[in-house]
Amino acid sequence: MDAPRFEPADAAYEQRVRASFGRQAAMATIGATLAEVEPGRVVIELPWQQALTQQHGFLHAGMVATALDSACGYAGFSLMQPDAAVLTIEFKINLLAPAQGQRFRMEGLVIKPGRTITVTEGRAYALDGGREKLVATMGATLMAVAGRGIQH
Amino acid sequence: MDAPRFEPADAAYEQRVRASFGRQAAMATIGATLAEVEPGRVVIELPWQQALTQQHGFLHAGMVATALDSACGYAGFSLMQPDAAVLTIEFKINLLAPAQGQRFRMEGLVIKPGRTITVTEGRAYALDGGREKLVATMGATLMAVAGRGIQH
Amino acid sequence: MDAPRFEPADAAYEQRVRASFGRQAAMATIGATLAEVEPGRVVIELPWQQALTQQHGFLHAGMVATALDSACGYAGFSLMQPDAAVLTIEFKINLLAPAQGQRFRMEGLVIKPGRTITVTEGRAYALDGGREKLVATMGATLMAVAGRGIQH
Amino acid sequence: MDAPRFEPADAAYEQRVRASFGRQAAMATIGATLAEVEPGRVVIELPWQQALTQQHGFLHAGMVATALDSACGYAGFSLMQPDAAVLTIEFKINLLAPAQGQRFRMEGLVIKPGRTITVTEGRAYALDGGREKLVATMGATLMAVAGRGIQH
Repeated sequence: MDAPRFEPADAAYEQRVRASFGRQAAMATIGATLAEVEPGRVVIELPWQQALTQQHGFLHAGMVATALDSACGYAGFSLMQPDAAVLTIEFKINLLAPAQGQRFRMEGLVIKPGRTITVTEGRAYALDGGREKLVATMGATLMAVAGRGIQH
Repeated sequence: MDAPRFEPADAAYEQRVRASFGRQAAMATIGATLAEVEPGRVVIELPWQQALTQQHGFLHAGMVATALDSACGYAGFSLMQPDAAVLTIEFKINLLAPAQGQRFRMEGLVIKPGRTITVTEGRAYALDGGREKLVATMGATLMAVAGRGIQH
Repeated sequence: MDAPRFEPADAAYEQRVRASFGRQAAMATIGATLAEVEPGRVVIELPWQQALTQQHGFLHAGMVATALDSACGYAGFSLMQPDAAVLTIEFKINLLAPAQGQRFRMEGLVIKPGRTITVTEGRAYALDGGREKLVATMGATLMAVAGRGIQH
Repeated sequence: MDAPRFEPADAAYEQRVRASFGRQAAMATIGATLAEVEPGRVVIELPWQQALTQQHGFLHAGMVATALDSACGYAGFSLMQPDAAVLTIEFKINLLAPAQGQRFRMEGLVIKPGRTITVTEGRAYALDGGREKLVATMGATLMAVAGRGIQH
């Protein structure tokens, strides 16, 4: 994907993203780590684990979605005001191929930032024996919620 | 949702759904159980657990999607031929309210069955202190894959 | 679909919906009329016409989407404050069957109204030789924009 | 968007796309023309016209969707077998900004071709006073239907 360059509204955006990510217990449960944090772009990585599989031994589509949703959400969050919380309004995911591999890399990118609504896209790649393969694409719509005292 | 009534192609549909569900390690990980299995309709339930939360302590949207995707997938699978496997092509989820509660109920319904493509819809409800609240809706498109020796 | 009952914020909701619909030149172009307007529910009808077809002589999916988007948008608009304008943030449509028929009926329903975000669902039916058939489903997310002097 | 390069299955792909496009009456109605046809990539252009507007004088979201759906559909069709017809299973569109301008350019790209299922993405740009602006993104899932004597 083409990655538009954005100016963060908050110089401490990376620290804010990492702190919020650290509070997502679901990320620890799936073994996900924050690999890259840039203004409007976040990469999350996770290893395959049996506990996350569907009936054929591949990563469950919902687990792919879980990591992609966080990648998209934090890509949007990186551009928001310091006091904003981020909510996912909706996302759509296309499963292009079985999520088969030893590791997975989820990239979230902001397509259009906004005061209230931010639109993002995600790509999920499987790393299987040295080869990287696109296995899913996501489109996610986020909302910034400000001044409500919600800790993000 | 209005639940259209369908005739299963396979009298052993429930056994087939339960066997496949039992092979989804992700379902055990999130503590999900198969509450109801009818032709074209499946209900999955799970309790809240800290391990599945996002940064505000609610169920992570991806975990809601994981259970809803399985509910929709098995609703479709219940109407397929005995030798068919089911793949999710894509799904979209709308998060209507924070997934806050002690238990969650995910309902998947077939809207339009088909030889190759099946279209389903899902509803996620949070049970919070005796009240049930609609927290998410899903639309999922499935594909039946037959005769490839894939175990579902 | 189950139609939740809603209280309109504006007693003149129907007049407001009809006035805005009358300003949508696209509705006149596709021959669409407002058949029903209730709080949170709008039905739009249109006849088949050659000018709206795709390569097989059926209604073009985009034309089905055009009428469904307006049905969903006005269903949401009917519940908004008198000074609000409505924007479609996104919609998804599933095409279940060819849009083949003499007339079409598009129903838009509010699933979850909100101060800022409203979530709706749509159903498109084809009337073909006396039989009515579900040909498409839509999920649309709307945003209320207030106090900006936009006429809706 | 990154445009993956694809080999067409049919050397006469452009002729096939143009012939089918010529049979879509809806394209003539909205004043759309085929600007570019490459393997896996199609660009459709259209001028603003009053007849296609919503209540604020911008292009109706459904009309944007109509042109984008055809751009995505023909991008996929360009890679299909000579005897295949193409059906849109579903699409999702995000409206990023009002479709305000004198002309519009819709680009459809294949992300993942397949024997049965093809996944595509679209981008809609408004040309307004010499400036080009991204106004919508689409994700569309297509199905190839072969050997049924359907003329595409």
